[in-house]
Amino acid sequence: MDFAYDARTVELRERLAAFLAECVYPAEPVHAAQVAGAGDPWARPPVLDELKAEARSRGLWNLFLPDPRYGAGLTNLQYAPLAELTGRSPHLAPEALNCAAPDTGNMELLAEFGSAAQRERWLMPLLAGEIRSAFCMTEPEVASSDATNIATRIIRDGDSYVVDGRKWWSSGAMDPRCEIFIVMGKTDPGAERHRQQSMILVPRDTPGVTVRRGMTVFGYSDAPHGGHAEIDFTGVRVPAENLVGVEGGGFAIAQARLGPGRIHHCMRLIGMAERALELLCRRALDRVAFGRPLAEQGVVREWIAESRVRIEQSRLLVLKTAWLMDTVGNRGAHTEIQAIKIATPAMAEWVIDKAIQGYGGAGVSQDTPLAALWAQARTLRLADGPDEVHRASLARAELRRWS
Amino acid sequence: MDFAYDARTVELRERLAAFLAECVYPAEPVHAAQVAGAGDPWARPPVLDELKAEARSRGLWNLFLPDPRYGAGLTNLQYAPLAELTGRSPHLAPEALNCAAPDTGNMELLAEFGSAAQRERWLMPLLAGEIRSAFCMTEPEVASSDATNIATRIIRDGDSYVVDGRKWWSSGAMDPRCEIFIVMGKTDPGAERHRQQSMILVPRDTPGVTVRRGMTVFGYSDAPHGGHAEIDFTGVRVPAENLVGVEGGGFAIAQARLGPGRIHHCMRLIGMAERALELLCRRALDRVAFGRPLAEQGVVREWIAESRVRIEQSRLLVLKTAWLMDTVGNRGAHTEIQAIKIATPAMAEWVIDKAIQGYGGAGVSQDTPLAALWAQARTLRLADGPDEVHRASLARAELRRWS
Amino acid sequence: MDFAYDARTVELRERLAAFLAECVYPAEPVHAAQVAGAGDPWARPPVLDELKAEARSRGLWNLFLPDPRYGAGLTNLQYAPLAELTGRSPHLAPEALNCAAPDTGNMELLAEFGSAAQRERWLMPLLAGEIRSAFCMTEPEVASSDATNIATRIIRDGDSYVVDGRKWWSSGAMDPRCEIFIVMGKTDPGAERHRQQSMILVPRDTPGVTVRRGMTVFGYSDAPHGGHAEIDFTGVRVPAENLVGVEGGGFAIAQARLGPGRIHHCMRLIGMAERALELLCRRALDRVAFGRPLAEQGVVREWIAESRVRIEQSRLLVLKTAWLMDTVGNRGAHTEIQAIKIATPAMAEWVIDKAIQGYGGAGVSQDTPLAALWAQARTLRLADGPDEVHRASLARAELRRWS
Amino acid sequence: MDFAYDARTVELRERLAAFLAECVYPAEPVHAAQVAGAGDPWARPPVLDELKAEARSRGLWNLFLPDPRYGAGLTNLQYAPLAELTGRSPHLAPEALNCAAPDTGNMELLAEFGSAAQRERWLMPLLAGEIRSAFCMTEPEVASSDATNIATRIIRDGDSYVVDGRKWWSSGAMDPRCEIFIVMGKTDPGAERHRQQSMILVPRDTPGVTVRRGMTVFGYSDAPHGGHAEIDFTGVRVPAENLVGVEGGGFAIAQARLGPGRIHHCMRLIGMAERALELLCRRALDRVAFGRPLAEQGVVREWIAESRVRIEQSRLLVLKTAWLMDTVGNRGAHTEIQAIKIATPAMAEWVIDKAIQGYGGAGVSQDTPLAALWAQARTLRLADGPDEVHRASLARAELRRWS
Repeated sequence: MDFAYDARTVELRERLAAFLAECVYPAEPVHAAQVAGAGDPWARPPVLDELKAEARSRGLWNLFLPDPRYGAGLTNLQYAPLAELTGRSPHLAPEALNCAAPDTGNMELLAEFGSAAQRERWLMPLLAGEIRSAFCMTEPEVASSDATNIATRIIRDGDSYVVDGRKWWSSGAMDPRCEIFIVMGKTDPGAERHRQQSMILVPRDTPGVTVRRGMTVFGYSDAPHGGHAEIDFTGVRVPAENLVGVEGGGFAIAQARLGPGRIHHCMRLIGMAERALELLCRRALDRVAFGRPLAEQGVVREWIAESRVRIEQSRLLVLKTAWLMDTVGNRGAHTEIQAIKIATPAMAEWVIDKAIQGYGGAGVSQDTPLAALWAQARTLRLADGPDEVHRASLARAELRRWS
Repeated sequence: MDFAYDARTVELRERLAAFLAECVYPAEPVHAAQVAGAGDPWARPPVLDELKAEARSRGLWNLFLPDPRYGAGLTNLQYAPLAELTGRSPHLAPEALNCAAPDTGNMELLAEFGSAAQRERWLMPLLAGEIRSAFCMTEPEVASSDATNIATRIIRDGDSYVVDGRKWWSSGAMDPRCEIFIVMGKTDPGAERHRQQSMILVPRDTPGVTVRRGMTVFGYSDAPHGGHAEIDFTGVRVPAENLVGVEGGGFAIAQARLGPGRIHHCMRLIGMAERALELLCRRALDRVAFGRPLAEQGVVREWIAESRVRIEQSRLLVLKTAWLMDTVGNRGAHTEIQAIKIATPAMAEWVIDKAIQGYGGAGVSQDTPLAALWAQARTLRLADGPDEVHRASLARAELRRWS
Repeated sequence: MDFAYDARTVELRERLAAFLAECVYPAEPVHAAQVAGAGDPWARPPVLDELKAEARSRGLWNLFLPDPRYGAGLTNLQYAPLAELTGRSPHLAPEALNCAAPDTGNMELLAEFGSAAQRERWLMPLLAGEIRSAFCMTEPEVASSDATNIATRIIRDGDSYVVDGRKWWSSGAMDPRCEIFIVMGKTDPGAERHRQQSMILVPRDTPGVTVRRGMTVFGYSDAPHGGHAEIDFTGVRVPAENLVGVEGGGFAIAQARLGPGRIHHCMRLIGMAERALELLCRRALDRVAFGRPLAEQGVVREWIAESRVRIEQSRLLVLKTAWLMDTVGNRGAHTEIQAIKIATPAMAEWVIDKAIQGYGGAGVSQDTPLAALWAQARTLRLADGPDEVHRASLARAELRRWS
Repeated sequence: MDFAYDARTVELRERLAAFLAECVYPAEPVHAAQVAGAGDPWARPPVLDELKAEARSRGLWNLFLPDPRYGAGLTNLQYAPLAELTGRSPHLAPEALNCAAPDTGNMELLAEFGSAAQRERWLMPLLAGEIRSAFCMTEPEVASSDATNIATRIIRDGDSYVVDGRKWWSSGAMDPRCEIFIVMGKTDPGAERHRQQSMILVPRDTPGVTVRRGMTVFGYSDAPHGGHAEIDFTGVRVPAENLVGVEGGGFAIAQARLGPGRIHHCMRLIGMAERALELLCRRALDRVAFGRPLAEQGVVREWIAESRVRIEQSRLLVLKTAWLMDTVGNRGAHTEIQAIKIATPAMAEWVIDKAIQGYGGAGVSQDTPLAALWAQARTLRLADGPDEVHRASLARAELRRWS
């Protein structure tokens, strides 16, 4: 048992921390100003492309991808501490490194399950950061955390598949550069419950695709992430070779995609909590109320201490989960993946809430990143299935040990 | 001791509930569509004026105002259950009844402390719902919950006062119909700590007034409430008769204004929580996950039960506080006013959070009112001073009993 | 709506507060010393009989009993604030006033459902405080919160009934003066689910009755309350006229008994919380740590404020519940009775926990009443059915409004 | 970074788990029966000596002691997972392995700071498990978490020191086999704040030593651990060579003693929580209420899942702390030691509370170990200084990073 990062991780963390300090944090107000000035909420602020170029030149690119043919070849355990750092500026840093969801999961999916042609056509431009992608699984009408509820149909018709259904929370799809949708639907509703679903690639400009609107998250459009689209697929016909993997393989692909995705989310949440705690400490040192800095007030100190304690515990559990994924595989790490999905958003929500309280009105406003960080953390208690579903499943596993 | 509402309250509650059911709830989607269609976030959707006309015709107008010369002449205890009902649709119902903050507090202030000329010029159009008003107290640079920190200056110069300072969170001031600002500043920084401040009326179009921007609350502009403005006052000269009350009376006026204001906020929060609980129950009955409606799942039932228990307790404490204000005055009700300020936003936040969780993605989005309700409740843990300040003060009072 | 106690309540509260201050609090250390000196944990300290005589002479006797033929004839709303005061010294005050559970519920039961002979034989000495009684419902082998699980049998055999079964948590039964057990069992397991049960009177000295042991509560024997016995009933034969009410009426009698019983428990819990808060405040004023009294430390202040806020809310809900029971009956107050059963023990547990923390080692020890108060509050989250059962039932009622 | 236990740890864990399963769990009811039958609460049940002999024969003896001259020579990181296992039966397992507090800390202290004569006279019989020891630091009259408050005096007088003062919470001192007290007092109240204190060895039978009483913890005497004594030292004269280390070195010794002590406490708490979770799961599978096993009820599942999540996080933080102590020393691990002191007792308290709730009345009684486990966990929020002191200190360290 050893709690030290290995040498490569240490080196990359230092390089990444320098990039954040020298480039990303200074770009935050620039980004906000460019967004405000653009008129179009979905416009792409130029500062982001500058950051991408800079990150690439510093060797901070596609770090998330374990396959060395395409990415940095890091293990989950090596990448996790880097993902954490990007969470400190979640609107800018992940995309600057070409490590932003949902593209990361989509790239992994294409690298692992895509055909050569699919990889050539879609993975390459994604790896280059030239286009973006969306993952279309959740549906408005059903509890999508239960995959058997998926109502979208993917029906074979000659050399094509025809896709019909409505998706929402397709993150990234409002970004005009988002060119490809990976869509989950049922090819065989009569099959065994986890063999009914398939995944298929649908280019955005295919006839019958309608991006209806962006969903908001506590008032935010999440435009920097490309928003969250509601999309209609009406008689959308794509070539049969657009299927990812085999018919009936959709559920397994989704599961494979979710494991690393959650690790990344959770590590970024830890970075978000660290940023919030830093902001709270700085505020506490600066702000005077009733004759004393907040830093000398017992309640604020309690928030700070409790935040530190909670962050440390969450980080270790996420890192152990990454280590398990590397050593015994996603399936062997199933319980831990559920555990961090439950624990980390709630932790981050708590820490950020305290930082907001320390800032007063500024905390809920556009003058600090806190309210937006909070909205993200809160939403992650729902995304990829509500916590309650994961708790019920984790409890079943625990009970099984004793029955 | 008697827990039944009196006859007038019962009758008005019925009338108001009918107005909500027949006019307000149906107007909610209309309002959203008109706002979305307007292009200008600060534009005024016509449906609101229709609601106002209808409310007035039904005798549901200015219910908040205890002074029978100007308003309905209800006690706090009679008005509180009505304010609760308006909280069920907080974007529309309060303004429809001309009972929206901050106008309510401003009208009370003018009715109680304004000169005849001030009442004629500003109170009358406010009572008629023709204009709106803002209350400019909080400042960006200081912990404004400590009134001695107020940095804005109001300096006598001949027959005028000259106002210099910066305010923010001036709610309502982004509304183009907002014509008058009540500004708190220091006329005598050397006086005893609660005699330094004065209040003065500043028409919005006075030279030197600059409304700089609207503050956001989480991602919301709060445009339906007229937003929350940051305002510069630079050498703003107004006639000396614009002073409200006497020099040095500002702190006392602010305190008088805050008591009923908090009751109103708290009662509306209870209505917001009731709305959220209704929405959660409806969702729980409709939505099926893993083969059973949410209503049959133990965790959801626990949320519902706990919500009911928390709402009931909060309501009673708010009503008792209203009764104390009516019987022993705001000062005698000081501890209880602090107590509801602490308890009610936290209660509402908790209940609304559970409803959001029950709705999944829809809960955080624009498709339910929940996320916006939550943002309001959260913000009220900060507005009128953060909870921590009230807790410290309440504890001092408690300790005094035993020392 | 009126939040003031009526004149009779005010007068009795003053009289009772004086009795507590002059007699009960000073008796607490005397009682502890007499218990410690007795050798036998179940021995009866003489100071208790002195307190009873004094209370009776002051007209503070059988206040709980609404039937004016037997008791004070107070409404629930009038008695509740008195029960609260007795909760401040829960080991001594309730019994001193002949208002201690389970005798109160048993006396009500006999007054309402007992035959003339039963009342003469058992109610009279209980009203005089000469004997004590126990209520035998809960069973070790089954989830007794579901009355259909009751396994004890009461079988008619000629002019007798024969009782067989095992009970536990029969509070008071370890007291040697406890002479009568009211036993719930099934007379007809095949009947409709709430008509299977009956209640019967079993004198303690009946052959076949074996008091096996006292159950402990977090290490406490609860000897001052007569402990909590596990009792075997083996072929226990009693005359048929010992049945209370009619065959099949046991469930209804139990329900009738539980309503007021919960009100009393809850009001005493509020008194317990008030006592704990007083102790915390006194400690905070006295104790110096790191150069300042605890009273000046923010975290302690937060505990005090939050305690006050929670106590006030709970008290109001309990009082409203009492008012509902008086005005619309126990059935009409069903939801509220469940609500206070959920809310009040949790509130008291929280407040007492903070007081314990303020006292450090003394808080968990015999040197303050806090640890014993806590154990009682914690146990009341389980007694009369665990909170979870009440929450599920309350949620069902809430959901019914919307389905 | 590597989350696997090393080979020696794995082997010892297996051996220890077998000892628990084969010897310790079966001894629990035997121990309870021997204690109940003894009459004298402080009598020593014979089963404990049998367990000790067996543990020693299995090579499970003095595992805690890192000094290979005296003990097993394990690192903190190796010992921690073993201490966890002993926490599953905290009344029996730690003492069976001669690894029970406070003897462990006292043996470490003597091994590290004791003179050769002191080691010979006291360490040897302690290592052999022939006698027990107590550590006398906390005082009733002062906030002892601030060491400058210590009022006990140790005054040099010729070849002797004379000790005067009162201690309490001297754990283990009620055990008749407890022969030696390590007493902290001030030798020089005028010195710099952390050089005022010294430690001295006081044999229990020295004239002037009076063991006054055992403190209770909730209702428990903690007799299996030797209780918690209040002790008077009145003109107690011991030879000058009884001083441990040098005059003024007491604070430093206490700090050195507390680090490993907390790790041990925290690891045992994790074992306690695991035991409680196992008991909850077993209950949930066995117990039927309202027609379904508890295991199928959503609220119980949520408890189980949340317990697992919390336990995993705590364990990792404790293990990391142990690793830090091994790699950078106690001082370098200061923040983490505080963090686990805050986090672990609260976690265990929460988990055990849920298990209690699952067991109903049995949970608070002597029929499960849960109530006693809970009382221990709760007390550890106070022992070695209340959490609030540690939070304030940890927050100061955190703030220092940003100032």
